[in-house]
Amino acid sequence: METDRISNIRIVLVGTTHPGNIGAAARAMKTMGLSRLYLVQPKRFPCAEATARASGADDILTAAQICETLPEALTGAGMVIATTARVRALPWPLMEPRQMAKTLITQTTSNECAIVFGREDSGLSNQELQFCHAAVTIPAADNFSSLNLAAAVQILAYEIRLAWLQSNETERSKPSVSLATSEQMELFYAHLEQAMIDLDFFNPEKPKQLLRRLRRLFNRAGLEVSEVQILRGLLTAAQKAANKSAKKPG
Amino acid sequence: METDRISNIRIVLVGTTHPGNIGAAARAMKTMGLSRLYLVQPKRFPCAEATARASGADDILTAAQICETLPEALTGAGMVIATTARVRALPWPLMEPRQMAKTLITQTTSNECAIVFGREDSGLSNQELQFCHAAVTIPAADNFSSLNLAAAVQILAYEIRLAWLQSNETERSKPSVSLATSEQMELFYAHLEQAMIDLDFFNPEKPKQLLRRLRRLFNRAGLEVSEVQILRGLLTAAQKAANKSAKKPG
Repeated sequence: METDRISNIRIVLVGTTHPGNIGAAARAMKTMGLSRLYLVQPKRFPCAEATARASGADDILTAAQICETLPEALTGAGMVIATTARVRALPWPLMEPRQMAKTLITQTTSNECAIVFGREDSGLSNQELQFCHAAVTIPAADNFSSLNLAAAVQILAYEIRLAWLQSNETERSKPSVSLATSEQMELFYAHLEQAMIDLDFFNPEKPKQLLRRLRRLFNRAGLEVSEVQILRGLLTAAQKAANKSAKKPG
Repeated sequence: METDRISNIRIVLVGTTHPGNIGAAARAMKTMGLSRLYLVQPKRFPCAEATARASGADDILTAAQICETLPEALTGAGMVIATTARVRALPWPLMEPRQMAKTLITQTTSNECAIVFGREDSGLSNQELQFCHAAVTIPAADNFSSLNLAAAVQILAYEIRLAWLQSNETERSKPSVSLATSEQMELFYAHLEQAMIDLDFFNPEKPKQLLRRLRRLFNRAGLEVSEVQILRGLLTAAQKAANKSAKKPG
């Protein structure tokens, strides 16, 4: 179920100036399984530009709650995280996104949670920060730390999704192929060695070293059964050629 | 130093339709300390829309390399990661972003690395995937997995930055080996194909399929320069034998 605990997390955008960012944020949320969007005094909304950038996440825009104040948008939320671009002299715990996501997912078992994003240019006011329990900072480059609003939503939503997937310990059904067994690999290596002998392809001083290098290569690759068959076919073809040429006096 | 190993990673955007996405991708890169952008046949570039969305990351757009083909954009790259939106029936190792970032940062000690992003609507072609050693998928929601291009760049760049920060902290000086570049791999594959022809080793009904399977295998393994030399030596020995036997009437 994609809509269990993760649906206890809401995204709150405060005073967003560009409607395109609201749409892009909705899209970012939806790709990561988040659906509840709260907008505090958006400058322009609804707006065609928001819908265009939502690119299929219109349902999130339609269901978005428009609020007059931040406290209104936080109604019912037991844990509130503020996002902040720079490390302020905040008395709140300052978390990294990964830690924040784990904390939040743990809290969702019995709490509504909110992540609050400030204005594009000036972030959250000190007064708005008073409503938050902790702050999160995305570790950006020192000389260029200004992430686009929707990009910041995308990263935090991504971390939340990872934490949620991990907490579910979902069994992903990796399409598995048949890998060659140890025995098949040994037969292949014996074949390879014989072919190298037939082809006179050895360094006489270090006869075993080449084979060792090739073993390392193929072991690293983790050969599938069908790949071993192809390679052995190729070796057989080379051996035939070698034996044919050897039989006749050069 | 923000510009040491991480500067060995390039971002390659293939056939981007919307110039705004190119600008937003440049901004995403710069916030995470990445700077090298390659554009393969962008639909419109340079473009005012790209510059607007770059929002201060103009230097990355100015320095962007415009290429005609993907191989051109991969020149010198020893490790190439393809991004794919859905789990294809790909035989390459499919990595999660976090694992991909760790792998890449380790490789940057002695290799140029590339992450390749496909077109907004159709991604990368199967032919383009042939040039890649591994694929990365961002674990998105099942019912809405279409991340915006720049959002995908943002997430992977973010994971790379985290892996880079972490590697700087631990500062484990694992020397990585020199991987074969894209050009060296193409020369190897051309050699392999010629050897298969010389050995009459082809399925006449599906002549290209075997080679494709072998490309897959060796790309997955990530060949070192010295391994390519060994394999090409082996191919040359097989060719000599084949030509010798062919010259004489059977």
